[in-house]
Amino acid sequence: MDNLELIKEISRSSPTKIILLVIDGLGGLPNPETGRTELEAAKTPNLDELAVLGICGMADPIAPGITPGSGPGHLALFGYDPISCLIGRGVLEAIGIDVELQPGDVAARGNFCTIDKKGLITDRRAGRIPDKKCAELCKLLDGISINSVKILVYPVREHRFVAVFRGENLTPDVTESDPSQVGVTALAIKALNSEASKMADIANQFIAQAGTRLAEHHPANMVLLRGFSRQPNLPTMSEIYKLKPLAIAVYPMYRGLARLVGMDVASTGTTLEDEFKTLKQNYANYDFFFLHVKWTDSAGEDGDFGRKVQILEQIDKTLPAVVNLEPDVLVVTGDHSTPSVLKGHSWHTVPVLLHSKYCRPDAVEKFSETAFLSGGLGRLQLTQVMPLAMANALKLTKFGA
Amino acid sequence: MDNLELIKEISRSSPTKIILLVIDGLGGLPNPETGRTELEAAKTPNLDELAVLGICGMADPIAPGITPGSGPGHLALFGYDPISCLIGRGVLEAIGIDVELQPGDVAARGNFCTIDKKGLITDRRAGRIPDKKCAELCKLLDGISINSVKILVYPVREHRFVAVFRGENLTPDVTESDPSQVGVTALAIKALNSEASKMADIANQFIAQAGTRLAEHHPANMVLLRGFSRQPNLPTMSEIYKLKPLAIAVYPMYRGLARLVGMDVASTGTTLEDEFKTLKQNYANYDFFFLHVKWTDSAGEDGDFGRKVQILEQIDKTLPAVVNLEPDVLVVTGDHSTPSVLKGHSWHTVPVLLHSKYCRPDAVEKFSETAFLSGGLGRLQLTQVMPLAMANALKLTKFGA
Repeated sequence: MDNLELIKEISRSSPTKIILLVIDGLGGLPNPETGRTELEAAKTPNLDELAVLGICGMADPIAPGITPGSGPGHLALFGYDPISCLIGRGVLEAIGIDVELQPGDVAARGNFCTIDKKGLITDRRAGRIPDKKCAELCKLLDGISINSVKILVYPVREHRFVAVFRGENLTPDVTESDPSQVGVTALAIKALNSEASKMADIANQFIAQAGTRLAEHHPANMVLLRGFSRQPNLPTMSEIYKLKPLAIAVYPMYRGLARLVGMDVASTGTTLEDEFKTLKQNYANYDFFFLHVKWTDSAGEDGDFGRKVQILEQIDKTLPAVVNLEPDVLVVTGDHSTPSVLKGHSWHTVPVLLHSKYCRPDAVEKFSETAFLSGGLGRLQLTQVMPLAMANALKLTKFGA
Repeated sequence: MDNLELIKEISRSSPTKIILLVIDGLGGLPNPETGRTELEAAKTPNLDELAVLGICGMADPIAPGITPGSGPGHLALFGYDPISCLIGRGVLEAIGIDVELQPGDVAARGNFCTIDKKGLITDRRAGRIPDKKCAELCKLLDGISINSVKILVYPVREHRFVAVFRGENLTPDVTESDPSQVGVTALAIKALNSEASKMADIANQFIAQAGTRLAEHHPANMVLLRGFSRQPNLPTMSEIYKLKPLAIAVYPMYRGLARLVGMDVASTGTTLEDEFKTLKQNYANYDFFFLHVKWTDSAGEDGDFGRKVQILEQIDKTLPAVVNLEPDVLVVTGDHSTPSVLKGHSWHTVPVLLHSKYCRPDAVEKFSETAFLSGGLGRLQLTQVMPLAMANALKLTKFGA
């Protein structure tokens, strides 16, 4: 019996409510000039008060040293083993924009990018072109057919798109073309086993054709593909936890991931205030709320320490909108750390705060990485947050006699 | 190789002695009026001194968020994986009162309870009737035969009894009749698979007959059955640890569990002083002592914060009787938390204190949940306590060359 099977056996429906506030890329690293992390630099009186009232700890999203993508990070948050339940980026992006994948479809995440005359990548995100431009360029690429495989291309946001390969005998076991760095050429896509050679061949032909069609569209004059994947089949959160869950997220990928584990997905606006308003409007109709805040991660990825601090302060200011709903359990955490000094996701543990009537508060008085080290949750696994939230909501019965 | 197989390979017999003092339901939650837990409210100078001399930590009995029954909690304490070694409550109770189960027997834990005229349960424990009354009522029910299945009914204590179903083709895969709440009717027992339909049918008929026979015996005018189970087959502690273990416990279930892992079980009295006296009398003849103190859990289950504090103080006062034996290793811990404010077992971590000549003391100076958070054992699994005790007793050889 694995952990989710155990939880499924002892979970029960009840009127108590859980809010899981996910601040994407929450954890950080010290600014070399000040020695303080983004959280330590930010003024967060409301989060600090929650830290006083709640129980705190630091969680490994996957395992020490492992830097998670957004998919594994969120699966872990929802309590699923992120290693055995791996979901490809392509599938996530597709689901997030309501693309209905068919059995056998292989989806890939695409970036428009900039290459120079030698074919070397100069910007992996093509200067983050506007959404409208992205949609126009996707039309240029959508519907290409290669050896009876049709490639459907859907815009996501900015430089991001989804490519769905639909045809016979396609498998996702291929490498990526994105080298994850600039100054080099894109990589050829290679089959990881003999059955994937068709997929690799079609993908490489598609990329070549895309390059031709985009040649005059600098800065978006090439594409990078990664995250080739097929849709997995996960038990839903309702099945496991007996919850009625709602997801509130501005960015498509997080809505997609929530849908994959069976959450309803709310329509919401584009700001933090919109999200909190959506939460309030739907509060009576659900008992679990996954509230996703993206901008901390974006600021960290851009290496913008000050902006990450600002966003944390903005979240803190609007936090009473969440606290005032008086959920039985409020969890504030992240899917991983995104330290500005690393300009990307990292392996560092991520702060976890849980507040409930029965949380056994610790002596922590500040919402920060260092303060949380002495918290009552100690060092935990991110997958353990959901069972703790369920327990604190009194939604888990006793295990064994 | 799982953990127990590893321990079995490297364990060795030696003259050193280990005492495992289990204070049932040890951990608590803050009293809302004072903000202090039962342990923080109690004056425990002897436990505090041990905390100064020893190494401390907080343990998850099963996993974060999981509330264990007494069976899984104790199996974890003895080092057995409590999830794969699940033991039914019925079997535990039966073993604890020296009922010799035969192959094929299915045992259930029974409660005498009170129902009103509508059949709604008003007290799941029938006012905790005296032991003598329990024995009288069990005689009323003992020996009923239904379709060639004989039902043997044995009194335990207060409102508790064991029903053993002896006959052909019985399997324990049935649901319970105890709804775990008052104000509702008892549940019909249902088969969980096709092979269990006979068991469910017999159990429901037995309950109906019991109701008739008990009708005039208010408050004990009905029975609730749960924990239908068969005896498992576990490796003994002598096989795994090369120990000669003795159990000292007032309550039957804990003696039963100890017997299940191959411990000898001492005759003892009904008080803490009796138990400590029994320990002293048997100290020369064993090298491992499981000493179980039940009353903390009972007070917690009754929601009696003050009584739990008193019992903790009483344990502390008599503790020198244990310490003065100068065991090579003394462990003080619990099988789970039973916070008075929750009136039941809980998922919270439980304090672990280990004292030995080689324990590497930490800076903890107080025996409490909050103080132990900064202890040298950190946050650990309860199953890891036995290997630590064995190591500190120098009973484990090096692993690998």
